[in-house]
Amino acid sequence: MAPPRGPLSQLRRGHEELVLGLLRKHGPLSRGELGKRCGLSRTTLYDILAELVASGAVVTASPQETPRGRGRPAETLTLNPDAGQAIGIDFARRGLHVAAVNLAHEIVGSASEPHDADLPWEQRVELAERLIGSLTGTGSGALRLGALDAIGVGVVGAQVEGLPAEGLSEERTKGREGEGPGPESGETPPHPVQVLLRERFGVPVLLDNNTRLAALGEAIWGAAAGGQDVLYLRLSHGVGGGLVVGGSLHRGAYGLSGEFGHITVEPGGARCDCGGTGCLETVASIRAVLDAYRATGGRAADVPELVKAVRAGEPSALDVLERVGGRIGEVLAAVCNAIGPSVIVVGGELVETGQALVEPIERTLHDHVMPVSRHRVSLRRATLGEVAGALGGIALVLHESPLLSRYPAGPDLAEDLTSP
Amino acid sequence: MAPPRGPLSQLRRGHEELVLGLLRKHGPLSRGELGKRCGLSRTTLYDILAELVASGAVVTASPQETPRGRGRPAETLTLNPDAGQAIGIDFARRGLHVAAVNLAHEIVGSASEPHDADLPWEQRVELAERLIGSLTGTGSGALRLGALDAIGVGVVGAQVEGLPAEGLSEERTKGREGEGPGPESGETPPHPVQVLLRERFGVPVLLDNNTRLAALGEAIWGAAAGGQDVLYLRLSHGVGGGLVVGGSLHRGAYGLSGEFGHITVEPGGARCDCGGTGCLETVASIRAVLDAYRATGGRAADVPELVKAVRAGEPSALDVLERVGGRIGEVLAAVCNAIGPSVIVVGGELVETGQALVEPIERTLHDHVMPVSRHRVSLRRATLGEVAGALGGIALVLHESPLLSRYPAGPDLAEDLTSP
Repeated sequence: MAPPRGPLSQLRRGHEELVLGLLRKHGPLSRGELGKRCGLSRTTLYDILAELVASGAVVTASPQETPRGRGRPAETLTLNPDAGQAIGIDFARRGLHVAAVNLAHEIVGSASEPHDADLPWEQRVELAERLIGSLTGTGSGALRLGALDAIGVGVVGAQVEGLPAEGLSEERTKGREGEGPGPESGETPPHPVQVLLRERFGVPVLLDNNTRLAALGEAIWGAAAGGQDVLYLRLSHGVGGGLVVGGSLHRGAYGLSGEFGHITVEPGGARCDCGGTGCLETVASIRAVLDAYRATGGRAADVPELVKAVRAGEPSALDVLERVGGRIGEVLAAVCNAIGPSVIVVGGELVETGQALVEPIERTLHDHVMPVSRHRVSLRRATLGEVAGALGGIALVLHESPLLSRYPAGPDLAEDLTSP
Repeated sequence: MAPPRGPLSQLRRGHEELVLGLLRKHGPLSRGELGKRCGLSRTTLYDILAELVASGAVVTASPQETPRGRGRPAETLTLNPDAGQAIGIDFARRGLHVAAVNLAHEIVGSASEPHDADLPWEQRVELAERLIGSLTGTGSGALRLGALDAIGVGVVGAQVEGLPAEGLSEERTKGREGEGPGPESGETPPHPVQVLLRERFGVPVLLDNNTRLAALGEAIWGAAAGGQDVLYLRLSHGVGGGLVVGGSLHRGAYGLSGEFGHITVEPGGARCDCGGTGCLETVASIRAVLDAYRATGGRAADVPELVKAVRAGEPSALDVLERVGGRIGEVLAAVCNAIGPSVIVVGGELVETGQALVEPIERTLHDHVMPVSRHRVSLRRATLGEVAGALGGIALVLHESPLLSRYPAGPDLAEDLTSP
């Protein structure tokens, strides 16, 4: 059965966050000290502590006799030092990326390994387990998730919908193609990777689109760190993106937000994989850009070769990127006028072409965004590289686990308690 | 000084909502009964009750001797029946709109009055007071705001930023033109209407852009009632809109969201008031549409005359609306791909032209939105008419007042308490 939702369970989650925040701030505290600081009734506090201890997030410390021998001191509670290893995995089309953070939410490591696009899910999960073992130093199979009790996973696909904040026990994906109209057409089976990972690790698996997760990663650890309203665009084999709105990942009503690659830029233009025509993706994907360059007589089999041509100052390569950058800038300006982000982050392999692409993007954005917004939005290149999606998976868990506070930690809860 | 923000004050607000929700559900309760049901410590509960009583949201009921004479029964607390009259005012460019709701959040009335565009603020506020008096039946000056203690106000202008949820005591507007770059360039003086209304009524005044408030109004009481992700477009003298994201009004990082009218649809096109060129507003505003119709030789001085021409089936009027509708549909499709709303609401005077405009909007939206989204988003005509902005002002107060629960009430807090 799903855990109860609604305001009361949100309130309970708020209480848990309060207690975890106090322990993070002050270190070990007795039940009495926690009671004084948190303002909760004894019954409520003890209930919450019992759950936090049962989950492994909090451990009790054996009391020692004080030197003055004033009798048996109270048992103290502390955050579990072995807990809170959070894992994110990005199952990209042709490679796997994993990342881990510790209890302090510091990145402890990341790893990537390319593979064939047709590698079966079973083998991808084995590969993931091996990479995670190499990160955590525990070796395969010895992974301890502790307090977190969930893995955040990114997968390819426009319609993967993230789990609701309190639905950790009911993994599901919604809104798959062919399911019929409306977002309310019922539950669909879990994604194969959710089933496999849960079998392997015995924990819930939070799932979302990996490009959306990259947006979240960049908004927390990357180019837009700390940004509350962030627009992320990825220029890769596909063109996609994600929105962070008010500090949270925005999914849209049916899990199809951030589809900037399918905004029409050339009405009646080339056919797109999505079924539409003239989408940004038909102009700004790696294949589209390479094709356009080769149509001018240029030679480049892949992005690194295109980058070489750009660095050599080949006019036709520069022309292509100028035109593509203009289209991208138009789309960014439209979305910017609609949403009003403070930061736009552009990532993906094509950004390796540098200013030849970024400069026309920025110029066109500037020309097409409302004049009054021009100096309020900042365009930046992504900084997390290929592990952005795996890091976003971790952020998803940190955001949505009922047992851990919002990341980044933000204003310390305990500070509010001590200020007048 | 501003009230404290951050998680703890959010927690406190959650506690207040819990108590108000219990009183709304169960009617009069004693302090002891409230304590049993809410799970808060005695100290926290008594603190919160003291504040709710002081604010007028809650009143104490004199205990009567019970028939069986078992001693003096406990004093009970109940929602103040005289409280909770919420008021919204839309100070539009050429007219004033007011609306009021009762404690049950039912609309008790609305009124509008046109005025000259250059009417001074003092006289607009006098007019507002008179209209409000006519609604509440109390007569001018006798208005009781009771528990609400705030007025929600819509004004014209792209850069009006709403107050944060807990900033009721520090009215301000941010991001006015010429203030320099960046959203953090300091506080600016309050809007004149805030000063005047506060002088007159002695309560805080929550302010936002009136088109954005119309979006909120339609999402709560209108065409998109209950929608969590709503895109609202208004086709009037200007072209603007608003976004409701996850049930809340989305303002963007610097209060400039929902500017759909300034998305470029004709690069190098007509000059727009915003300083850009080829914006949707240069094509789809009332003036632009009338001008385009007159350029074909048609005669229409205003929208009602255009509506007549459309109803008479004049081909040039239909052609103009076909073309304009196409541009609107393209913009809506782009924003839809970016944000993924479940409902798009189109309002404003131009929608009175009916299917001649709505049909090409819908068709172009369908053609340009990602095929997989086509049947997931519903296009609707606005239903609240000219008082949408005033109703949105009320919604703003109900959403953001620390003393009142989120509207619509949503899952009842008390139900969570009684379920296993």
